[in-house]
Amino acid sequence: MKNQFVYEFEAGNKGMKGLLGGKGANLAEMSKIGLPVPEGFTITTEACIQYYKDDKKITDTVKEEILQQLKALEAKTGKGFGLKDNPLLVSVRSGAAVSMPGMMDTILNLGLNFETVKGLEALTGNGRFAMDSFRRFIQMFSDVVLGISKHSFDIIFDGKKQQRGIKNDFELTKEDLAGVIEDYLLLVKTQTQKPFPMDPEEQLFLAIDAVFDSWNNQRAIIYRNAHDIPHDMGTAVNVQSMVFGNMGETSGTGVAFTRNPSTGENGMFGEFLMNAQGEDVVAGIRTPMDIKEMETVMPGAYEEFVQICSRLEHHYKDMQDIEFTIEKEKLYILQTRTGKRTAAAAINVAVDMVKDGIITKSEAIMRVEPEQIDKMLHPDFDPEALEEALLFGEGLPASPGAATGKIYFFPEDVVRARERGEKAILVRQETSPEDIEGMINAEGILTSRGGMTSHAAVVARGMGKCCVAGAGDILVDEVKKEVKAGGVLLKEGDYISLNGSTGKVYSGKVPVTRVNISGNFNLILEWADEIRELGVRTNADTPRDSRTAVEFGAEGIGLCRTEHMFFDESRINIVREMILARNLKDRQKALTKLLPFQREDFKEIFKVMEERPVTIRLLDPPLHEFLPKEEEDILTLAGELGISPEAIKDIVKDLAEFNPMLGHRGVRLAISYPEIYEMQVRAIFEGALEAKAETGRVPKVEIMVPLVGLVKEFTLIKAMVHRIAEEIFEGESTIPYKVGTMIEVPRAAIVADKIAAEAEFFSFGTNDLTQMALGFSRDDSGKFLAMYKEKGIFEKDPFSTIDVEGVGRLVEMGTQAGRGARADLKVGICGEHGGDPKSIAFFHSVGLDYVSCSPYRVPVARLSAAQAKIRSQQ
Amino acid sequence: MKNQFVYEFEAGNKGMKGLLGGKGANLAEMSKIGLPVPEGFTITTEACIQYYKDDKKITDTVKEEILQQLKALEAKTGKGFGLKDNPLLVSVRSGAAVSMPGMMDTILNLGLNFETVKGLEALTGNGRFAMDSFRRFIQMFSDVVLGISKHSFDIIFDGKKQQRGIKNDFELTKEDLAGVIEDYLLLVKTQTQKPFPMDPEEQLFLAIDAVFDSWNNQRAIIYRNAHDIPHDMGTAVNVQSMVFGNMGETSGTGVAFTRNPSTGENGMFGEFLMNAQGEDVVAGIRTPMDIKEMETVMPGAYEEFVQICSRLEHHYKDMQDIEFTIEKEKLYILQTRTGKRTAAAAINVAVDMVKDGIITKSEAIMRVEPEQIDKMLHPDFDPEALEEALLFGEGLPASPGAATGKIYFFPEDVVRARERGEKAILVRQETSPEDIEGMINAEGILTSRGGMTSHAAVVARGMGKCCVAGAGDILVDEVKKEVKAGGVLLKEGDYISLNGSTGKVYSGKVPVTRVNISGNFNLILEWADEIRELGVRTNADTPRDSRTAVEFGAEGIGLCRTEHMFFDESRINIVREMILARNLKDRQKALTKLLPFQREDFKEIFKVMEERPVTIRLLDPPLHEFLPKEEEDILTLAGELGISPEAIKDIVKDLAEFNPMLGHRGVRLAISYPEIYEMQVRAIFEGALEAKAETGRVPKVEIMVPLVGLVKEFTLIKAMVHRIAEEIFEGESTIPYKVGTMIEVPRAAIVADKIAAEAEFFSFGTNDLTQMALGFSRDDSGKFLAMYKEKGIFEKDPFSTIDVEGVGRLVEMGTQAGRGARADLKVGICGEHGGDPKSIAFFHSVGLDYVSCSPYRVPVARLSAAQAKIRSQQ
Repeated sequence: MKNQFVYEFEAGNKGMKGLLGGKGANLAEMSKIGLPVPEGFTITTEACIQYYKDDKKITDTVKEEILQQLKALEAKTGKGFGLKDNPLLVSVRSGAAVSMPGMMDTILNLGLNFETVKGLEALTGNGRFAMDSFRRFIQMFSDVVLGISKHSFDIIFDGKKQQRGIKNDFELTKEDLAGVIEDYLLLVKTQTQKPFPMDPEEQLFLAIDAVFDSWNNQRAIIYRNAHDIPHDMGTAVNVQSMVFGNMGETSGTGVAFTRNPSTGENGMFGEFLMNAQGEDVVAGIRTPMDIKEMETVMPGAYEEFVQICSRLEHHYKDMQDIEFTIEKEKLYILQTRTGKRTAAAAINVAVDMVKDGIITKSEAIMRVEPEQIDKMLHPDFDPEALEEALLFGEGLPASPGAATGKIYFFPEDVVRARERGEKAILVRQETSPEDIEGMINAEGILTSRGGMTSHAAVVARGMGKCCVAGAGDILVDEVKKEVKAGGVLLKEGDYISLNGSTGKVYSGKVPVTRVNISGNFNLILEWADEIRELGVRTNADTPRDSRTAVEFGAEGIGLCRTEHMFFDESRINIVREMILARNLKDRQKALTKLLPFQREDFKEIFKVMEERPVTIRLLDPPLHEFLPKEEEDILTLAGELGISPEAIKDIVKDLAEFNPMLGHRGVRLAISYPEIYEMQVRAIFEGALEAKAETGRVPKVEIMVPLVGLVKEFTLIKAMVHRIAEEIFEGESTIPYKVGTMIEVPRAAIVADKIAAEAEFFSFGTNDLTQMALGFSRDDSGKFLAMYKEKGIFEKDPFSTIDVEGVGRLVEMGTQAGRGARADLKVGICGEHGGDPKSIAFFHSVGLDYVSCSPYRVPVARLSAAQAKIRSQQ
Repeated sequence: MKNQFVYEFEAGNKGMKGLLGGKGANLAEMSKIGLPVPEGFTITTEACIQYYKDDKKITDTVKEEILQQLKALEAKTGKGFGLKDNPLLVSVRSGAAVSMPGMMDTILNLGLNFETVKGLEALTGNGRFAMDSFRRFIQMFSDVVLGISKHSFDIIFDGKKQQRGIKNDFELTKEDLAGVIEDYLLLVKTQTQKPFPMDPEEQLFLAIDAVFDSWNNQRAIIYRNAHDIPHDMGTAVNVQSMVFGNMGETSGTGVAFTRNPSTGENGMFGEFLMNAQGEDVVAGIRTPMDIKEMETVMPGAYEEFVQICSRLEHHYKDMQDIEFTIEKEKLYILQTRTGKRTAAAAINVAVDMVKDGIITKSEAIMRVEPEQIDKMLHPDFDPEALEEALLFGEGLPASPGAATGKIYFFPEDVVRARERGEKAILVRQETSPEDIEGMINAEGILTSRGGMTSHAAVVARGMGKCCVAGAGDILVDEVKKEVKAGGVLLKEGDYISLNGSTGKVYSGKVPVTRVNISGNFNLILEWADEIRELGVRTNADTPRDSRTAVEFGAEGIGLCRTEHMFFDESRINIVREMILARNLKDRQKALTKLLPFQREDFKEIFKVMEERPVTIRLLDPPLHEFLPKEEEDILTLAGELGISPEAIKDIVKDLAEFNPMLGHRGVRLAISYPEIYEMQVRAIFEGALEAKAETGRVPKVEIMVPLVGLVKEFTLIKAMVHRIAEEIFEGESTIPYKVGTMIEVPRAAIVADKIAAEAEFFSFGTNDLTQMALGFSRDDSGKFLAMYKEKGIFEKDPFSTIDVEGVGRLVEMGTQAGRGARADLKVGICGEHGGDPKSIAFFHSVGLDYVSCSPYRVPVARLSAAQAKIRSQQ
């Protein structure tokens, strides 16, 4: 069988991307389903391969096929190539099988010359338009095909404008443009030693050569190397007849969405301009009319368009964004693509389409971006106000949402401002656990240091509060109570606005709006729940966070950090008394004082969580984190506790560490001071008993030991837990409980089989696991991670999206080894990655039981988990 | 066939440990090879099992066998059980298949009563001895068999001494002892409601019961649980006739080594006492004679003993430590065991025995403890002087050897003292690279902070210099120039002495001796070289260290740390200039100044190493390590460089890190500042070319990239190295080189296949790999590691001996994956573990190509590598 090198659009379909390229296959698809696409044909990728085989020559066979199709095209359009009265003009576009920016640009209006330009003028009744099209064509063709830089043409064009003393392109008359063209042609002749090709056929074949050549231009080669695309695939060439919407009052052009892209409401949404080309809409000189008004001015075309929109939605099963042109009452669809939409629209469209039977629930779930779900939960800036806002600086988008308020530098000032009814933004170099009260009362938090997993970022996300972190260019002077960036100085009490979703910081007040959450929001999440296999728990340390998380659909607590409780004002000094104790007796005295507080903490959380599992992590941070560092604070503490400041300083110095991350923390504390964990376990069990007594519901207690790397660390603590359980429980007063461990030290993942023989559950602490497996301190890596992303060493921040190849492999190994030793081992993950869609997909793929994330990420996780399941089934 | 429950010694051999227990099998073995062992028999472990089956009763069949053997024993010894004139006395000992401390003690002189004690008196002519033996027997029997605490007897015995107003046991007369016995027997009667058993047969069976019962006493059960020994194996019982060396002038007792345990010289070495029992030798009342004098006084026995010594050496193929007794001219061998010896003796004995054809070279190699080899290389304290020395404090034995000298607190003071001809000890809280000159000039180094892999420890080991590190109880006040411990205060200029092998610190001067290294030392290492598969390289940063290492047999450099070169006085300020540079141009200017220094560094090392491979690690530490921290030093630097102190402080602050271990260091520096590595690579290649030109030998260059975790980090550097090579090399001026990487980030071990596809060699940096895989900062973990060892969580410091299960697994995984991707991948290890025998055995087992260790550990590594190979073949 003879090889076919050229296909008319109607002969292909969307399955022929390899042969026709992506663009060609889509044009074919639209033609195939009967849409009025401007006629044309595609020269195949095989023709391109052949071209290279033949030393960059188009062979006669291929040439013949092209000419045949050109003939057919003339017949279909009733126009003629080079025909003065009714010229056929075409666009020429490259189109490889894989989309490849860096290849040839589009050439429009190919076929124009001094003859046909007159035909175009006659047809459109617009001499200036025709001449400008000719000018653009010469410039584009010369640039792309003849290799004369655009810049040389710009000089001529700008010269003409200067000479005429005008500012805007559209002020140039037809005659001016004719003069420009004259100069253009002169330039081409001097540069190429040949006159500009005026024969349309010659133009066409030169353009086809240029597209084929562009397959091997440097940009394309680099792009293919970078994306592992084979170099021998070749590109197709699409030749399509031009249509014009400016051929009088029965012509026009427009853009429309099949549904409202802001709300998702079902109904045409868009703009339309009579007797105009697409450029006119963009230029903004004339005001377009609402698409619905088209019904009045061009009822026939409108009706056809409405029907096409419906067909397109059903065909592509999604809201479409459609460009069209009407040339002398004939409707042409130039392009259709999936319409961009707001978060609310995405959800509403997806749900409506399920209800209309267009898509399935699974498809609906796949239509919603997890980050859109997240956006729904957080306030945003009023988009119009944002356009006027003054950018002050930029940091990391650490916790989404928008916030505006007065600047305060100290937590206590934030609290006072709040009491006065002001909205406050807490601005600090970095936050520490002591700032918690200020963070709670602030609208948003801005720090100049720290990364995506800094204290400020983690705590803010937990609260669902807007936070911009690590804004290195913003200088925060807490002593002078000033904040400076790019020459602008703001003082305490001045307004500032933060966008935690983009990391942008604005000076002044920017109004904030809140998205309305519709019933569809919950509906789509319920569908996700039906589908997903991965459980979704939350990281919550307080009854308030727990309640929020349950409302968002959390099925339990995967990580309850007990250290945050230690920082509460009512107990921090007791904690310090405990740390400063020089002997066991004094330490136990302080712990005895702490016990009732902790018991109450846990009881309240158990009451909120009812019969859902609650995983409580025993104390994790190094003790020095609880001690004051500043001279002044040490003096205050010394006074309060009746200890000499020197004694406190000695202990602070003694506890100081070179690498606290790898220091005396987690279970290591409990090996040195078993009494601390003993108090906590006692508080947990007693709190659970009280909650049971008050509510009649039996809490599901899971006690988690942090930083285990050696199985004996775990067994020592487990034995202690069982001992305390025996002391406390008797008869009816019993609470079922499990003892498990974090897997966050790389060694733990390696010896997971041995640990699982002892532990009843695992929870991967992927924050620390990432730090240790990669050797990246999260507090310090900001300094080089930016450079890493720039040089393509890391595509994503490994603290945001799990490093599948490295850290992910440890999670996989640990899970497999653990389940090998204990088939019913429950395995979850409670690092920041638990709320990241890409990471969730990975956790689904390795078969974890659940992810745990901050309350505000719970809906995102529910959706992502369902999407992961659906994707894995495809 | 009838089960045999009792074996006379002659009937067994050393292969019957399961049935006869360890002790019984050894007694049998000695009897079997014809040694004059006192006669006796063993009741088997099966008899013990039977005893438990029969509700703790010795059945009649077993009893009958025992009595039969007892009869036979009487016949063989010509003595009689309970016979007044010539009593048979026996010892009864437990003896399980696996040695088990915690079981029954020995009972001696069983068979004594008021009748036989007279016989003993008659036989020995020593009434006091006989009576004291009887007293001891009653006490021992009552304690072990009847369960009456030793303490009650001690009260009686001490009461008698008080009553008689004497201090020493031996001052009690026969009559005093008779009185004590009377009281003892009264005590037994009141406590047991029965008289003490005076019938020898009854004594024997009670003792056998007691041994069987002891199998299940609490200590034994705990011991078996802890060591995974089955509980149903049972213990054997050994019944052996007593012999007496105090039966007149034809009797005696002694202890002898078959060779000199200090020097290894071949020839009898020991002591002998006429007419005496073993206790007399221990009591030290009489001065024993040299064993060789025995030839004169007891020529027959001596000749026999000499022959037996030779037989024992040949039989056990090692130097023996032998206890013997001569009873009325008859020689009995009571015990033979491998003799303890000094390092020098161990080597000399092993070599001599190979020469004498007693053992093979492999056996000789297994006879020398690696740590003995190490001891040979370092000075030691004069043992006698050490007994008088005043202990000042204790730290970690960070680098072996002994040193004595005057205390100085600052490196420059050490240098000045050395110039004055004084011996100096550098005493500091901790050392930093700036102290290097002081460390070189000091006899030894003492620090109060830091662990086994602290700067002081690592550098001192590299120099083979004595160091005690992290002596936490010793308070070093560098400002006051004082050091304090346990109330003792030493000042600058006072003498102090360090033992780096034990960690002990003494106040004052303790004379130091140096072991002479014999030719046998080198011989045994040459044998080790013939056998071992593992290569041995060294970690060396200077020509001097390289030369030392080559002399010790290093086959190349496995780790040349370039940062130590940066600290040299002549260039540290250029390094600082480079770090403080605010732009690339200034940085490159400083680097250009550094280039000639580095080139010279490398050239000299290449010249020393000749054609041996030299692995050079590019810069590793974070830049802040090179900057001064103290106000004063910053001011000085500011003056020298003409920069404002504030600018320096800003940069110091800017570079500060929370966890420098996981911070901006290693290859990460080169991603941010490629020009630093570029300079180093240039210096390496140019230095290699110059060395080649000067010596005519072609250096073998291996360039190593530190801290790689992601393959792209490596490929970026590799491309740079190749580019610089292309720039520098042409024609004849070419040096072969390899580019490889450290594997020290856990992730690197996990993705080793991907890295090996690019890297030509791996070197496991097990120091950092241990820190990251375990999450243990080596600078901070001292605080809890002691507790970890105490609680049995870690048996060994994982920074000294590799954590096989965790870190070792990563080494294994990384090696396998790496070789899977590149079959000829060279894999070594250059962490501190490279010089540790246990770790070396592991590295052999996973098939590494070489270990690299500090120069002074090279001999240890050579021996350990051979031992690992030999052990793996067994």
